[in-house]
Amino acid sequence: MKEDIQIAQETEMDSIKDVAKDLNLSADDIELYGDYKAKIKLETYQRLLEENEAGKLILTTAINPTPAGEGKSTTTVGLGQALNQLDKQTAVALREPSLGPCMGIKGGAAGGGYSQVVPMEDINLHFTGDIHAIGIAHNLLAATIDNHIKQGNELEIDPSQVLLKRVVDMNDRALRNIVVGLGGSKNGQTREDGYMITVASEVMAILCLAEDILDLKERLGSIIVAYTNDDQAITAKDLGVEGAMAALLKDAIKPNLVQTLENTPAFIHGGPFANIAHGCNSIMATKLALHTSDYVVTEAGFGADLGAEKFFNIKCRFADLTPDAVVLVATARALKMHGGASKDNLTEENLEALEAGLENLGKHIENVQKFGAPMVVAINEFDSDTEAEIEMIREYCEERGVKVALSQVWAKGGAGGLELAEEVLEIIDQPNDFELLYDVEDSIADKIETIATEIYGADSITFTSGAQKDIEKLAAAGFDDMPVCMAKTPASLSDDPNLKGRPTGFEVTVREINVSAGAGFLVALTGDVLTMPGLPKKPSAEEIDIDKNGKITGLF
Amino acid sequence: MKEDIQIAQETEMDSIKDVAKDLNLSADDIELYGDYKAKIKLETYQRLLEENEAGKLILTTAINPTPAGEGKSTTTVGLGQALNQLDKQTAVALREPSLGPCMGIKGGAAGGGYSQVVPMEDINLHFTGDIHAIGIAHNLLAATIDNHIKQGNELEIDPSQVLLKRVVDMNDRALRNIVVGLGGSKNGQTREDGYMITVASEVMAILCLAEDILDLKERLGSIIVAYTNDDQAITAKDLGVEGAMAALLKDAIKPNLVQTLENTPAFIHGGPFANIAHGCNSIMATKLALHTSDYVVTEAGFGADLGAEKFFNIKCRFADLTPDAVVLVATARALKMHGGASKDNLTEENLEALEAGLENLGKHIENVQKFGAPMVVAINEFDSDTEAEIEMIREYCEERGVKVALSQVWAKGGAGGLELAEEVLEIIDQPNDFELLYDVEDSIADKIETIATEIYGADSITFTSGAQKDIEKLAAAGFDDMPVCMAKTPASLSDDPNLKGRPTGFEVTVREINVSAGAGFLVALTGDVLTMPGLPKKPSAEEIDIDKNGKITGLF
Repeated sequence: MKEDIQIAQETEMDSIKDVAKDLNLSADDIELYGDYKAKIKLETYQRLLEENEAGKLILTTAINPTPAGEGKSTTTVGLGQALNQLDKQTAVALREPSLGPCMGIKGGAAGGGYSQVVPMEDINLHFTGDIHAIGIAHNLLAATIDNHIKQGNELEIDPSQVLLKRVVDMNDRALRNIVVGLGGSKNGQTREDGYMITVASEVMAILCLAEDILDLKERLGSIIVAYTNDDQAITAKDLGVEGAMAALLKDAIKPNLVQTLENTPAFIHGGPFANIAHGCNSIMATKLALHTSDYVVTEAGFGADLGAEKFFNIKCRFADLTPDAVVLVATARALKMHGGASKDNLTEENLEALEAGLENLGKHIENVQKFGAPMVVAINEFDSDTEAEIEMIREYCEERGVKVALSQVWAKGGAGGLELAEEVLEIIDQPNDFELLYDVEDSIADKIETIATEIYGADSITFTSGAQKDIEKLAAAGFDDMPVCMAKTPASLSDDPNLKGRPTGFEVTVREINVSAGAGFLVALTGDVLTMPGLPKKPSAEEIDIDKNGKITGLF
Repeated sequence: MKEDIQIAQETEMDSIKDVAKDLNLSADDIELYGDYKAKIKLETYQRLLEENEAGKLILTTAINPTPAGEGKSTTTVGLGQALNQLDKQTAVALREPSLGPCMGIKGGAAGGGYSQVVPMEDINLHFTGDIHAIGIAHNLLAATIDNHIKQGNELEIDPSQVLLKRVVDMNDRALRNIVVGLGGSKNGQTREDGYMITVASEVMAILCLAEDILDLKERLGSIIVAYTNDDQAITAKDLGVEGAMAALLKDAIKPNLVQTLENTPAFIHGGPFANIAHGCNSIMATKLALHTSDYVVTEAGFGADLGAEKFFNIKCRFADLTPDAVVLVATARALKMHGGASKDNLTEENLEALEAGLENLGKHIENVQKFGAPMVVAINEFDSDTEAEIEMIREYCEERGVKVALSQVWAKGGAGGLELAEEVLEIIDQPNDFELLYDVEDSIADKIETIATEIYGADSITFTSGAQKDIEKLAAAGFDDMPVCMAKTPASLSDDPNLKGRPTGFEVTVREINVSAGAGFLVALTGDVLTMPGLPKKPSAEEIDIDKNGKITGLF
């Protein structure tokens, strides 16, 4: 079996100018980054939004992820390719991958098999530099805080209340908890600090929610970086560096264009965390795709309980988007794990475990239905799946009146997604009752309770005393009328990663609530969120190599 | 008077494809980064080196820098423009600027006035991403060290003997001295650590000395990152990540092409520190310029005592280059400071101070003569210079049989450099007795003594007991047959920054000697070297802004 990188390298790519031409974009509309990557100019973006009608928006989401793999990006890419095979002019919109995981545990983030975006080495390694630009804009802000404190601290920042950590696009656990400013006062104020991986930066979330440069700058200025000795919020604007930060993002804000293995246009732009942030590619990329294509397939992070919920309640709310169809990805393997099968026995047929695990799919079906968007379940096929297993999933969906299709896009590319594409096309023009789950004017506690009970299926919600204080503080500061971004384990519908399937009778505990004032949402933490991953014992970086001609191997 | 950025933004740039065409490069030879930046493909680089003769190499260097400014980059760019005005096909080769200083104290690094490289905003802000790529390749290596220690430490790395700090392209003094790995063993081993600015990374020095990808990878693998409990050196290769590091640099290794305000081709590539590293743009960029142009003007960091000495003894030695002419830049202002004038009185005529300060120029003239390359002194004109001052500098040079020219390239672009260009052309075909100052086979102490006495004019050299031990250890490990990279204050010919002019009767003290085994040189420290700058009270970042159309202001 060929490796992803091998398939990618054997593909004949179109010049990115030709890909742009397929979107009716001329050479003047794009800025080339080599022969196979481009950024779309901001003038072009504005013009297209004014001149062109928006196409149809398809969201790919999934059941709760397991180590068995779901293939959400692969399905997104494959469905885009399949729609184009059916002569429906389609683009995909995806998140850009972080370098950290790519150097850590095998797994780039550019799809897989015959449904990938290319050039995959470039996309996985720096791409057009967006994430580095985000990192340095963030770190400029961080350096400015410590510099302000050292240079007299006019704003009276409390060194023990600096919120903004520094960032790096690497898995580096030794940086989780550090002390900075050692070595005497000429080297700054000594204080506890830490690093996050760059994609966890609020600057990343902001880039993905901004609609133009001024909006970007305004949001950057609103980032709360610290509190004063008397608990007043200090923002990036107070430090006067939001202009420089926006200048550092002058190119990063422009959506990137690449292609899939079948030359389907792919907008890949932004990739915020899906726990402390909303986990979708940029609004600008999605809108650009919609205004250049008849159909757009995009994805949201983790399972539908986190990803789709935030896609709807945060991204669609801010950008005034309506999904025309939802594809809910499930695999027999992952469902068997939700039904109690262990990771080592997934190649064996196990209808009992599958039947039990289907409850997880069932809950996500109900959840998507609550938003009123038409839906198809995609069964992402693995070699080891048996006919009986596939059939059981089909029946389960059909019994619930939900469309279902087998997807073989990993093995066959677009040709493996024709059934799925046809089912999507059947529902996509249906009358659409899409609605958001809550009003931003609801109280913070009500919004969180709505998500926990309606989406997760919790019986009740508890706020720790700390969280209750956070609510009071946030409401007093006028930050209560924002959507809520839930930070919860992706592994379970509940806040306990060990509860697979469809847990019931559980309570969700909210421990802490913060505001991402620049991004424009509240973040409710239901457990410890790791914002700086570590490397494994044998990092995948050890397998990556390059030959004298620049050909890369060992990148997965 | 117009600001640099205003002059730059008012210029009509040629498409970078046309700039490439002037070098006989086709669209297939380059990778575009937007319309005005490109990288040269590696195949093209190899082909040009095989097929084309090398042009003439002109090095721009200077007297010891003062806060008054010398204008080395401006002279380099202006001379390139002037040579083209004289129909001599010329390219310039420069270092790429770091973001840190650009956000700190006013002063990008793209020339000035009417002798700049453009697009200046891009060149100063990320450019083509090389420095970020270098930073993350470095930080991958750093993360791997701590990960290795945490995951069982098979190599028996001594946590107190980790040499490799982390890097960021920002002025961030709070990161100079830090403690990492706090919060319990799941977060790594607690140890003292620190950050450097990215351009101080050995990875940067390596990129600038590598001649192809395999050479790059080999050198990366040789970086010594730590010592074991029994003092054995641990390299990047021992950790197995030199392939991934080289893969992360797959694009960064390709030289960048931009243009000057007068459309002279400019190769801007790499920018290592000029104290702990050799301070010149990449060998690949210099060679590429030489094999596409009849004349190449390039620069070296700081004054000639550091920059030119290292350009010759390190870069020319490794790359087998011979300079055909040297331009030694001096200003009346800086010479007056060397003669005792204070920074606040430089606009007044002061022939007494100038006469005293000319000794500094005199020593640099003697030094360049020791290498045997033909030379012109360029007097870089400032508005406040008086005729008598200029005349005094001219006479000083003429008395010593050295050619001298007034350079007005800041105010007039290439037209202001015609006298300089003509003088350069007069000497450039002279028989050239260029020779290196020492043999790498000389002992470490002898090499350092040669540089200190011959170039700095020291009476003698002292090694601290630590430095003596370093010499023994390095010799025992077989690292003695490398050129020496001196880390000395740039402000004086001596190792005391307060000794202006031409100090005599002084001793140079070497405190520590390290090996940059990947770069291939020894680093002799004669004082504390600051590898992480800080931001000033009012960072220039506060003045940088961007408007809704992406136009940047406040960048100097």
